Amino acid sequence: MRPEEMILVSVDDHVVEPPTMFEQHLPASYKAQAPRVVRKKDGSDVWVFQGEQIPNIGLNAVVGRPPEEYGMEPTSFEQLRKGTYDIHERIREMNVNGLLASMCFPSFPGFCGGLFARQADKELARVMLQAYNDWHIDEWCGTYPGRFIPLALPIMWDPELMAAEVRRAAKKGCHSISFTESPEKLGYPSIHTTHWDPVWRACCDEGTVVAIHIGSGAGMSFTSMEAPVDVMMTVQPINIVSCAADLLWSRVLKEFPPIKFALSEGGIGWMPYFLERADYVHQHHHAWTHQDFGGKLPSEVWREHMIVCFIDDPTGVKNRRDIGLDTITWECDYPHSDTTWPTAPEILAKSMVGVPDDEVHKISWENAMRLFQLDAFKHRPREKCTAGALRAESPDVDLSVKSLQGGKPPSESDGRPVTTSDVMKQLASAFATQAE
Amino acid sequence: MRPEEMILVSVDDHVVEPPTMFEQHLPASYKAQAPRVVRKKDGSDVWVFQGEQIPNIGLNAVVGRPPEEYGMEPTSFEQLRKGTYDIHERIREMNVNGLLASMCFPSFPGFCGGLFARQADKELARVMLQAYNDWHIDEWCGTYPGRFIPLALPIMWDPELMAAEVRRAAKKGCHSISFTESPEKLGYPSIHTTHWDPVWRACCDEGTVVAIHIGSGAGMSFTSMEAPVDVMMTVQPINIVSCAADLLWSRVLKEFPPIKFALSEGGIGWMPYFLERADYVHQHHHAWTHQDFGGKLPSEVWREHMIVCFIDDPTGVKNRRDIGLDTITWECDYPHSDTTWPTAPEILAKSMVGVPDDEVHKISWENAMRLFQLDAFKHRPREKCTAGALRAESPDVDLSVKSLQGGKPPSESDGRPVTTSDVMKQLASAFATQAE
Repeated sequence: MRPEEMILVSVDDHVVEPPTMFEQHLPASYKAQAPRVVRKKDGSDVWVFQGEQIPNIGLNAVVGRPPEEYGMEPTSFEQLRKGTYDIHERIREMNVNGLLASMCFPSFPGFCGGLFARQADKELARVMLQAYNDWHIDEWCGTYPGRFIPLALPIMWDPELMAAEVRRAAKKGCHSISFTESPEKLGYPSIHTTHWDPVWRACCDEGTVVAIHIGSGAGMSFTSMEAPVDVMMTVQPINIVSCAADLLWSRVLKEFPPIKFALSEGGIGWMPYFLERADYVHQHHHAWTHQDFGGKLPSEVWREHMIVCFIDDPTGVKNRRDIGLDTITWECDYPHSDTTWPTAPEILAKSMVGVPDDEVHKISWENAMRLFQLDAFKHRPREKCTAGALRAESPDVDLSVKSLQGGKPPSESDGRPVTTSDVMKQLASAFATQAE
Repeated sequence: MRPEEMILVSVDDHVVEPPTMFEQHLPASYKAQAPRVVRKKDGSDVWVFQGEQIPNIGLNAVVGRPPEEYGMEPTSFEQLRKGTYDIHERIREMNVNGLLASMCFPSFPGFCGGLFARQADKELARVMLQAYNDWHIDEWCGTYPGRFIPLALPIMWDPELMAAEVRRAAKKGCHSISFTESPEKLGYPSIHTTHWDPVWRACCDEGTVVAIHIGSGAGMSFTSMEAPVDVMMTVQPINIVSCAADLLWSRVLKEFPPIKFALSEGGIGWMPYFLERADYVHQHHHAWTHQDFGGKLPSEVWREHMIVCFIDDPTGVKNRRDIGLDTITWECDYPHSDTTWPTAPEILAKSMVGVPDDEVHKISWENAMRLFQLDAFKHRPREKCTAGALRAESPDVDLSVKSLQGGKPPSESDGRPVTTSDVMKQLASAFATQAE
């Protein structure tokens, strides 16, 4: 399929929250307590909430920079492409990349709203988290109907409240909720307990997908502080395999037949191996481990419940039938450094050479629209949804690469390989200056 | 290729050390201090060394049991197939499985000789470890020339001594040394330091392969104590991906051009994805991470240095060219529960349907013989090396499955899924009874 003919729905992008986000979504009595953006003396912007400072306004939001500067953490809104935080510019960024629709994970609150979850005042936390969701669903996604798959933040500290939020969000048309790779690493009961059952039940009732992003457990996974940072970047996606195995063998898939989980940014090329391994383990060991999939293989049960996605994964595409053609979706990862923006159609088309058109459609948009309940064609005719048609709508987006946009480099540029330790120090240094 | 026509060399099996192993390999003055097997009051056998008790004489050595009893830890030599610890019976076990040659990892001292490494008396430790290597090379492997790839234990606590042991073992015809997935997790400097350089240099000089078995870092990897044990069994092999990434991006492959690492029991089906991911990371990020492969891709450098293997991995075989046909070897994993004994030829042939004969040969024996310097055909004519010919040599091996051989079950058999916690308690309980 030619790149311009493709229809593209990305199930994993990121929003950098704009400073104005809480203005329209809080009762008057709470407005003064809302998180706010503060410009510091060193010129950097931080979110401040209940005395806590979050300096990484758009962690790794380096789209539009030259690769030499991918390692420099943006520290102010001026250093970001406007499309990272401005909804109208975001749509133009999507158009120029031929992208019909996008699901956006959060930035400053953390993948599972950890900023709110760690507040002592749980009522305040709930109000702010729900305001976040209202902003995300009604304002960010709602401004351009049909162009976004909304994603709610979870009320992690209370499964009953979280279930209620799943139902509240669903009424507003939001059928995804963010969750963690590992509740235990965040201090909550594991998925092998009954603790989360109210959430699973609500998700089944509402047809809501549980979306799990890499790094949503204990953050980045390091082998060693001395290791080149490339080690972390290589294994971060595939490390979701532990969460995948946890889900696959858990009682959740067995006891909640309609439940759907999405693994976000985990890649797919390793999955044929993973599914074969699970089946091998089952065949060799179920007699003593007492696992019972009701006569099915683990891989079959997996395909009934899982949604997977990739950025650029020729091996996964090649072995798509061994993964499960109806489970595969695609992602763009804008505005992070792994993104294929603004040539996503060309890069995806390259890995789709030889793939029949109906299978390309499943992977690039059909599965995503079906599984996340997005009816984009209700809002614009299908012929206006192709990469070519969308690009024609925003011919004037500035695509020039902007050098020296500023930010903190990971190390003195002495040419030696950058290590995990360098990156950790870089991130920590953002916390070292005073708030105001 | 028909199963009987195959030639099979397994690069990952396990030896259960016989009680007599130190008899012939120690100076008289050290004999009294050697590790010895003690029969406890409860009928179990343990190794005892310097007051330390190692109750798991043959951890997971359950070959020959019905699958219902794979979870029961053998606690005495009588509960094991004799081929696990008796060299003459081992050869018959190999024959009946059509297996020409085998590399055997250790059992009671740990994959990297941890039992010796943790002794305060380092001179005693060195003497015992070298006696172990002498027994392994001269007695276990040496009794049947051409039937084994010897593997030395490493002197982990001193890289210079370890380098000397690499050279000493090489002189005796041993060109592999066991190493760990993660030195840091064992309390040593990481592979990203220069600490191990004497070892890498010795291995380059001697053509010795550094063999890294799964679980050789911090042991088993758990997501949660409440998780079904199947989770651990599913991810244990692929978890070697962290070690693989560590090696790939390290200075070791770049600065020691002839060095070879073998990843043991890690499977191969995930590697096409892994190599593509590494290349993607390199292309996107090398401008700021300063990685330099001298104009090559990471995947190309990988194929120059790595030896990989699988038990049963149809996905890996299907994608063998994306992995690197000259890097792939095969393993049998006797006597552990994942083993394909005694039908390895049939199971391997099944995944080789459609693979050209020359490629089957590379995977099933040629790569292993070349990379580990085994010249089996010097000791027996090639036509006597096929699975069919070897089986004909031992027609009378008892292949009946033996039920209720005894051992500790992982949990009360109430039919609920066995958890990580159950297995941990089972292993710990082996330490709960008095030594004598």
